[in-house]
Amino acid sequence: MPRISNKGLNMPQSPIRKLVPYAEAAYKQGKTVYHLNIGQPDIKTPEIALDAVKVHSLDILAYTRSEGSDEYRNKIANYYNIHDIHVIKDDIIVTTGGSEALLFAFGTIMDTDDEIIIPEPFYANYNGFSTASGVNIVPVISKIEDNFALPPIEEFEKLITPKTKAILICNPGNPTGYLYSKAEIKKLASIVKKHNLFLISDEVYREFAYDGAKHYSIMQEDEIAEHAIMIDSVSKRYSMCGARIGCLVSKNKEVISTALKFAQARLSPPTLAQIASEAALQTPQSYFDDVIIEYVERRNILISELEKIEGIKVAKPKGAFYCIVELPIKNADNFAQWLLESFDINGETVMVAPAAGFYSTPGVGLNQIRIAYVLNKDSLVKAVNILKEALKVYKD
Amino acid sequence: MPRISNKGLNMPQSPIRKLVPYAEAAYKQGKTVYHLNIGQPDIKTPEIALDAVKVHSLDILAYTRSEGSDEYRNKIANYYNIHDIHVIKDDIIVTTGGSEALLFAFGTIMDTDDEIIIPEPFYANYNGFSTASGVNIVPVISKIEDNFALPPIEEFEKLITPKTKAILICNPGNPTGYLYSKAEIKKLASIVKKHNLFLISDEVYREFAYDGAKHYSIMQEDEIAEHAIMIDSVSKRYSMCGARIGCLVSKNKEVISTALKFAQARLSPPTLAQIASEAALQTPQSYFDDVIIEYVERRNILISELEKIEGIKVAKPKGAFYCIVELPIKNADNFAQWLLESFDINGETVMVAPAAGFYSTPGVGLNQIRIAYVLNKDSLVKAVNILKEALKVYKD
Ligand SMILES: Cc1ncc(COP(=O)(O)O)c(C=O)c1O
Ligand SMILES: Cc1ncc(COP(=O)(O)O)c(C=O)c1O
Repeated sequence: MPRISNKGLNMPQSPIRKLVPYAEAAYKQGKTVYHLNIGQPDIKTPEIALDAVKVHSLDILAYTRSEGSDEYRNKIANYYNIHDIHVIKDDIIVTTGGSEALLFAFGTIMDTDDEIIIPEPFYANYNGFSTASGVNIVPVISKIEDNFALPPIEEFEKLITPKTKAILICNPGNPTGYLYSKAEIKKLASIVKKHNLFLISDEVYREFAYDGAKHYSIMQEDEIAEHAIMIDSVSKRYSMCGARIGCLVSKNKEVISTALKFAQARLSPPTLAQIASEAALQTPQSYFDDVIIEYVERRNILISELEKIEGIKVAKPKGAFYCIVELPIKNADNFAQWLLESFDINGETVMVAPAAGFYSTPGVGLNQIRIAYVLNKDSLVKAVNILKEALKVYKD
Repeated sequence: MPRISNKGLNMPQSPIRKLVPYAEAAYKQGKTVYHLNIGQPDIKTPEIALDAVKVHSLDILAYTRSEGSDEYRNKIANYYNIHDIHVIKDDIIVTTGGSEALLFAFGTIMDTDDEIIIPEPFYANYNGFSTASGVNIVPVISKIEDNFALPPIEEFEKLITPKTKAILICNPGNPTGYLYSKAEIKKLASIVKKHNLFLISDEVYREFAYDGAKHYSIMQEDEIAEHAIMIDSVSKRYSMCGARIGCLVSKNKEVISTALKFAQARLSPPTLAQIASEAALQTPQSYFDDVIIEYVERRNILISELEKIEGIKVAKPKGAFYCIVELPIKNADNFAQWLLESFDINGETVMVAPAAGFYSTPGVGLNQIRIAYVLNKDSLVKAVNILKEALKVYKD
C-alpha cells in the first residue's frame, strides 16, 4: 500500500474533532448538548443576501474572474472606504472564504521552512494552513492575565530569524476575543517595518467590536502599505459561513499579482455565493447594531455567570464571540470528554473546545477551554450552570 | 519592501493570460473575437440545478460538514454506482471544485520535492498545484501522431525514482481529447501496483465520451483500490463551473482521513452550490444525450474544417471538448498574439490557447495550439476559416 505524505500525517486534527464521537454518543443516550464549542453563529443571515440568490437569472452557472467579479470587488472597496480603509478594487482578490485567503497569503510570501510569528493562543486552523504550506509557526505567548493583549514587542524581536517572513495577528481574536488598540497596531507596524516583514491581519471579526471600541485595521497604517495583507470574510459579518466568500487585500502590487496566480490555478471563487455576498453589502446598519447588542448581552451574561464559579479565570472579550476560560482542572481534553460521556443535569450537558489546540507551545493552555457565545442567553445561563455543577464533582 | 516567496515567483501564469491584454485591445478596436481558448462551456446548466437554489429555505447560510453533507455524498455514491463505480459515501470528500480535490490529493500523498509523473500535454493548472504544493512534475511525452494515446509503459518506468509518489492522468484529456481504453488503464494499474505508487485520475470530463466509447474509470480496477484517487467535478458535467463543487474519491481509508484534515482546515465546501449540485444529480439522461450529440457534431465539423487547412496536424478527440492542432508555424504564442493584434476578416478574429503551456518539457509543443469547441457550429466554421486565411498570410 503506498504511503501518504509526512505533510498529511502532520496535518493537525481540529481540536474539537476528537470529541465528536463522544458528542454523538451523548445524543444517542438522549442527552441535550449545549454547543459552546463552535464558531457557527446562530444569527440569521440578512434576507437581502438570501433573497438575491432566489431571484438569480443565470442560465449558465459560469466561472467568474479568478480575482472575483469586477462589480463585487468595486463594491467591497466601497465598503472598506466607508470604514476608513482606503483601497481600490485592484487591491482585492476574492477568495473561497477567509480560509483560502490565508492559504494564498502563506503561499505568496513563504517558502518551505520559512517562519511566521503568531501570538498564541490563535485560530487553530493556522496550524493546518502552515502545515499544508510547509512553513513553521513560531508562537509568542499572550496571557490570560493580560486579557491576551499584544505581548511586549521585545518578545517578538527575540524570535525573529533570517527565516521569519511575517507576523500574523487575528483582530479581534479567535479564540481570545481581544481587540488590538491603535497603539498596539502601531507597535506592530514599526516592528515589521524595522525588520522588513509582512504583517498579515485576519480581520474576519471586524464588525464584532464591543463597548464602543472602534476596530483599527492594519490597512489604516499608511507607513506599512507594502507590508500589510488583510484577510477578510463574509462568514461571520453576515452570518453566512456557508457562502465561502472572503478576500485578500493588500496595496502591495507584487503580493496581489502573486496571489492572483494562486487564484488563477483554482479558476474562480463560487459564483452563487458572490451574488449573495454582493447583495449582503446592502445590509442596513441596524442589522449590525442589533447583532452587536445581542452579542454584548450574551457576553455580559456569560462572563457574569462564569465569574460566579470558584477558581476560574476569564479573559473579558472586547470583540468576536469567543472567550478563553481557565478552569481549576488539570486537563481540559479529559474534562470535555467527561462532560459528554459521564455528566448531565436532567439529561443536559455541554460541549466545550479544549484550548490546548489553540496553542502551539506544547503543554500550554491545558487547563483552558474556549467558549463560543453563539447561543441564546437562556441556553448560555443553563450551559454555564452545567459547567459550574460539573466542576464541583469532577476529579482529574 | 518585503520579498515574496520563490514559490510565488515560480507559480505559473495561465497560458492564456498573456493574451488577455491583446484580446482586450481587439475588443476596443471593435473586433469580434471567437474564443477557441476557453474551457467554459456555452451549454445551459440543467434547470433543476438552477431552480433548486431559487427555492432554498435557509435562514442561516451555515457551514456544511467539511467532507460535504451526508445527503449529498450518499447521492454522489449512488450516481457512481449507476456508472459501475462501487463506492460509498465514506469514500468521498466534497471539495471546492476539482481544483481543490487536486490540491488535497497532492498534499495527502506528496512532500516537498516529491515527484509525480504526468503524460504531457496536460491540464496547465497541474503546474500551479504542484508549485503551490512544492512538488515536481516529471512529464512523459505523448504524441500527436498517436492521438496522444498512453505512452509505452517503459517510458513511465524509466522516470520512476525513489521520489516518485504517483502517476496522474486526465481521462478524457484536457487538452488532448484522448480517452484512455480499458487496456491502457490496466497497464497503468499494473505499473502503480508494481512500484507501489498512487494513481490519480482526473475524470472531470467522464460524461464526454464519443463515438459509442464507454469511459473506464480507475475506480473500476479492484486490484488498485488502495492506490486509486479519483478527481471529479460538477463543472463540466452539468455546465456549472461557477458552482465550485467537486470531489475526491478513494477507497484508501488513510487517503480519505488525511484529505479530510485538509478539508477541515478550510471548514466547508460552498453550501448553496451543494444544494445546486445535489439537485443536478436528478438531471435526466436526455440532457447528456443532447449534449453529447451537440459536442460530436461540433467536433466533426471542427475536425473536417481543420483538415482542409494545408500543413496542419490534428489529433482526433474521442472525449472532452478540446483538441490539439499542430500548425505550420514556429511559435504559436506569437501567432496567437498576431491573430488578436493584426489580423481579422471583416472585423472578426480568433483567440486560441498556445499549447506550450500544456507541456512541461521546454521547447515542446511550440507550434501547437489547443482549440476548445465550446462554440456553436456556425461560429466554429467561421473561426476555423479565419485560422485558415490567417495561416496563408502569417510569417513567423
Ligand atoms: C479567525 C478566523 N479566521 C478565519 C476563519 C475562516 O473563515 P472562513 O473561511 O469561513 O471565511 C475563521 C472561521 O472561523 C476564523 O475564526
Ligand atoms: C482537466 C481538468 N481538471 C480539473 C479542472 C478543474 O475544474 P473545477 O475546479 O472547475 O472542477 C479542469 C477545469 O477546466 C480541467 O479541465
